[in-house]
Amino acid sequence: MTPSERAAAQRESLRALGPHLTPEMISGTTALCAAALDPGLLEGVEVRRDLVYGPHERHRLDVYTSGEGGGRPVLVYVHGGGFVVGQKSAPGSPFFGNLGGWAVRAGYVAVVINYRLAPESTWPGGAEDIARAIGWVVENAAAHGGDPERIFLAGQSAGAMHVADYLAQPGLHGPHGRALSGAVLVSCLYDVGRATDNPMHRAYWGEDRSRWAAMGSLDALVELDLPLLLTVSEFDEPEFLDHARRLAATWWERHRDYPPMHLLSGQNHLSPIYGIGTDTDVLGPLLERFIAAHARPGERGAR
Amino acid sequence: MTPSERAAAQRESLRALGPHLTPEMISGTTALCAAALDPGLLEGVEVRRDLVYGPHERHRLDVYTSGEGGGRPVLVYVHGGGFVVGQKSAPGSPFFGNLGGWAVRAGYVAVVINYRLAPESTWPGGAEDIARAIGWVVENAAAHGGDPERIFLAGQSAGAMHVADYLAQPGLHGPHGRALSGAVLVSCLYDVGRATDNPMHRAYWGEDRSRWAAMGSLDALVELDLPLLLTVSEFDEPEFLDHARRLAATWWERHRDYPPMHLLSGQNHLSPIYGIGTDTDVLGPLLERFIAAHARPGERGAR
Repeated sequence: MTPSERAAAQRESLRALGPHLTPEMISGTTALCAAALDPGLLEGVEVRRDLVYGPHERHRLDVYTSGEGGGRPVLVYVHGGGFVVGQKSAPGSPFFGNLGGWAVRAGYVAVVINYRLAPESTWPGGAEDIARAIGWVVENAAAHGGDPERIFLAGQSAGAMHVADYLAQPGLHGPHGRALSGAVLVSCLYDVGRATDNPMHRAYWGEDRSRWAAMGSLDALVELDLPLLLTVSEFDEPEFLDHARRLAATWWERHRDYPPMHLLSGQNHLSPIYGIGTDTDVLGPLLERFIAAHARPGERGAR
Repeated sequence: MTPSERAAAQRESLRALGPHLTPEMISGTTALCAAALDPGLLEGVEVRRDLVYGPHERHRLDVYTSGEGGGRPVLVYVHGGGFVVGQKSAPGSPFFGNLGGWAVRAGYVAVVINYRLAPESTWPGGAEDIARAIGWVVENAAAHGGDPERIFLAGQSAGAMHVADYLAQPGLHGPHGRALSGAVLVSCLYDVGRATDNPMHRAYWGEDRSRWAAMGSLDALVELDLPLLLTVSEFDEPEFLDHARRLAATWWERHRDYPPMHLLSGQNHLSPIYGIGTDTDVLGPLLERFIAAHARPGERGAR
């Protein structure tokens, strides 16, 4: 197949799966992306698993490194899963080793974290765990070939909301401060007061919906002094498209300038992350450009 | 070099050249992109040169095709050059054979045109020539393996302005009508009434600046019923960034939705086109996604 045929075939497959996170859509997307992965993506990559960053059994992270050289940008990844499920890796699954292997090939160190899940952990527990993990990265990056002055934090879906909370609430930051050069939110809900009433959301944000509005990140993100890369997908859940559009519109009203929001053509809620490292990867190249623009120590890039 | 190092090195090189179209910036950008081109990009590609689409000596076009199969999307490219210079190809230059070779590899047929230059040709002469060329493509695409029902029209800088005029002025269309599935504008001036007063602009738009405003395309593009892919570059000439921002802001005001404008990180006025087919190509993957989204006959894609 030519690249155009691959792109067109992936688009039609993802469109056919529909935007909703049904079991068929999830298994269909993961199978499609897994089949497109280079099976040798982790060759030459050292994976240091289940390193401890806090007291809870979910305070564990995996480090992906070439084992050579040092001073590389560090990409910290926070998985999705509706606040209630998900994990940094699973036996037999290529995810999120795909992200780890891609990152090492691209010249980074990757840190993929677990965090406490709802309902055990409620808002802002995810952001608290990220603060712990970032503290661990600042203190341990150099030992794994990373540069603690060039840390990028990325999350998808619920993971993106945890990242957004970490950005929006400086009070949660640890002794090293925010300690980021940039942040990446893949398919995030920004305006929590408008979020759908469903069991997953109640498990994390609580039973009292009147309190949800104060848990949103939209206003803080629009004012943030940190480079952001935001994405939403053409075939995303409509709720995520709606929130992204609201953020972009608010950004235009506030700044009269481009929002850092990228609408990913032909992708769905899951495919940008599961597709990293494949031959139809759209997010990886965006991440490379973003990190290249903002990874110079001491330089504050254009927002 | 890792991909991240390549992206960072290209970014720094282009930044160092500055945004202005000086001889040093032009030669530096072309040299940088030429060095990154795969020298085998045209292997297996049939180039049919200087086909005649009209009576003027500049009414000539080159077709790039695999020579195999048929029914492929056709990408028509209109070069830039400030209205007064530029050409589809030059002896010893890899441009725009880079675009032709990339397009054939991607599964398309490419048509790269010359058009009459200012001051001999004044507004809307460029759009008139495009109308002729599109008519030629509709009638001759099949003979070169292309599908006349799936024509995409792209231009850069002055070439983008000619494309924008073609889109904005249905009165110029030939007997086949607009005959497009989508259009691509790379670094375009949209609001001609606000354009800089310089000799190139006067050569094409005329000495009477009071008439320039009516020659703009911004309002028409915002209302257009055709899929658009618009780009501007981070290190573009400030005037192009200003016009792109105005188009995007007007689009938000009109549609409350994403404009089709892409701000290309780390690129300058020339690098997206000269970089097509290189290993730091940012425009090629965007084009593939755009064409995949809109190349199905009979389907009107989302704008």
